[in-house]
Amino acid sequence: MSTKLSKEDIHQIQERINPYVHHTPVMSSRLINELSGGDLFFKCENFQRMGAFKMRGASNAILSLNEEQKSRGVVAHSSGNFAQAVALSAKMMGVKAYIVMPTNAPKVKKQAVESYGGIITECEPTMTARQSTTDNIAEKTGASPLHPSNQDEVILGNSTIATEFLNEVPDLERIIVPVGGGGMIAGVSLACEALSPLCEVIGAEPAEADDAKRSLERGEIVLNESSSTIADGLRTHLGDRNFPIIKRVVKRIITVEEDEIIAAMKLVWERMKLVIEPSAGVGVAVALREKELVAQGKTGVIICGGNVDLENLPW
Amino acid sequence: MSTKLSKEDIHQIQERINPYVHHTPVMSSRLINELSGGDLFFKCENFQRMGAFKMRGASNAILSLNEEQKSRGVVAHSSGNFAQAVALSAKMMGVKAYIVMPTNAPKVKKQAVESYGGIITECEPTMTARQSTTDNIAEKTGASPLHPSNQDEVILGNSTIATEFLNEVPDLERIIVPVGGGGMIAGVSLACEALSPLCEVIGAEPAEADDAKRSLERGEIVLNESSSTIADGLRTHLGDRNFPIIKRVVKRIITVEEDEIIAAMKLVWERMKLVIEPSAGVGVAVALREKELVAQGKTGVIICGGNVDLENLPW
Repeated sequence: MSTKLSKEDIHQIQERINPYVHHTPVMSSRLINELSGGDLFFKCENFQRMGAFKMRGASNAILSLNEEQKSRGVVAHSSGNFAQAVALSAKMMGVKAYIVMPTNAPKVKKQAVESYGGIITECEPTMTARQSTTDNIAEKTGASPLHPSNQDEVILGNSTIATEFLNEVPDLERIIVPVGGGGMIAGVSLACEALSPLCEVIGAEPAEADDAKRSLERGEIVLNESSSTIADGLRTHLGDRNFPIIKRVVKRIITVEEDEIIAAMKLVWERMKLVIEPSAGVGVAVALREKELVAQGKTGVIICGGNVDLENLPW
Repeated sequence: MSTKLSKEDIHQIQERINPYVHHTPVMSSRLINELSGGDLFFKCENFQRMGAFKMRGASNAILSLNEEQKSRGVVAHSSGNFAQAVALSAKMMGVKAYIVMPTNAPKVKKQAVESYGGIITECEPTMTARQSTTDNIAEKTGASPLHPSNQDEVILGNSTIATEFLNEVPDLERIIVPVGGGGMIAGVSLACEALSPLCEVIGAEPAEADDAKRSLERGEIVLNESSSTIADGLRTHLGDRNFPIIKRVVKRIITVEEDEIIAAMKLVWERMKLVIEPSAGVGVAVALREKELVAQGKTGVIICGGNVDLENLPW
């Protein structure tokens, strides 16, 4: 989106998706404030429906279809949270959801999609196969394809994370946002730009998948050569719909190492009693490490989700 | 306490400890409501300071000492949450805390007590050694002994869990409370009796440590012959200060099996994104199993704490 949104635009999106999403709580921790020397506020999207912020983009995207499009359904490929978000949003709105999942997707995620009434098609675990299977379904059924991060209506839905956050803590000096496909940070950027232009939007990325940091530095989208990070939600790359917004609003992206991500995640489980996923640990790790950054004023940190395999913890 | 408390008594206790404890949130889960068929409200004492409700009793007990007693300090023996609660409460009130801990207490608990400024004395891991070490310290220093569950001021402090809960959800038909030493359920009973006498107080206990259930049935305190339950907070027995209250107010105690406790705990982690300890899982397990009980009206469940060893999970 090449133009800024107005406050009214932002509030309209919030009103539109309100019936379909949770207004998630903002939490804080004396101990983590002491450790970081900051005044940190955590926006808990792990308490969002289906356990992650993806619900916001998915529901906004389906709501923006016309009746005729809705009657033909939606289709998305995803091995994780977005699949669940699309299936659940579609179910609430009475829309069919075709979900393409790689054969190696975790069983528990498939079961969750099924429990929300999603119609699963399995494919080979390659991006090419996922895309072609999705295209085939879209062609055959007329279903509208949804993209987890690189689609305007998804980005707009994600803006509501920051709308709620700034409503509750209006004087945030900065918000730290994990960056994967770029859909969340782009949405947060749009809301900050409209509602609190002095609030700095800072990206948080694993050093092992630092494509967004390099993209921002180069001024063009670059890909990850490898992406062996535990933060499985952040292995993807930016897209042409979100990158222009990120370039316009985000001044810096800070990377953290794998051991910092795991330590931050564990700290939040132990001391805040919150189950958060590794991708959420990335933002916390930045806040814990960058003591100078957080020393002044209030810092927001987005806990993007809490979907983890409890049988496979990294400690 | 042989007499009922008045509403005013109850509110005075709440006001007194307010500056020292968190007002914890009440949460609910669509999915767990669907699974149980009930309308469940969880009082999240896992978000309490030091991670468990024990903070309430400990702080109220120290606050009720006179200045001269305070100057001599307090002493308690505990291998777990109560040690941390006493140390932290005492620190906030500028009172010395002598903590007797068995040599086999988890290192992480000792470190937590130290970080709150508690003065640790180690002893053999037997109840006799713990008690005699505590008595010795009390005699030498003049410190006031605090008991985790069988002391009036501790029980009164615990009443505030239900005071807050009923304030937020006034029409609870019942509250399910895990029972270990009996201090929490006695406190909750006093508050319900004063504020909402029609709200039924129901105990939840592991079948492997069902001393409270048997005590209530017999009308006298009986002990556990063994107590090999994962719910380590519930292995203790009732005492002469709390049992009369329990007998007066609590009509039934429901037991659950070990596999139900673990499944309930895991379900709350996975779906509510809350880290809760096994003892808290006991109350959730009762709510999940007793479908007829929870079918009518609103049911409160007390999540007593969230202190677990993340390196040693039961799944």
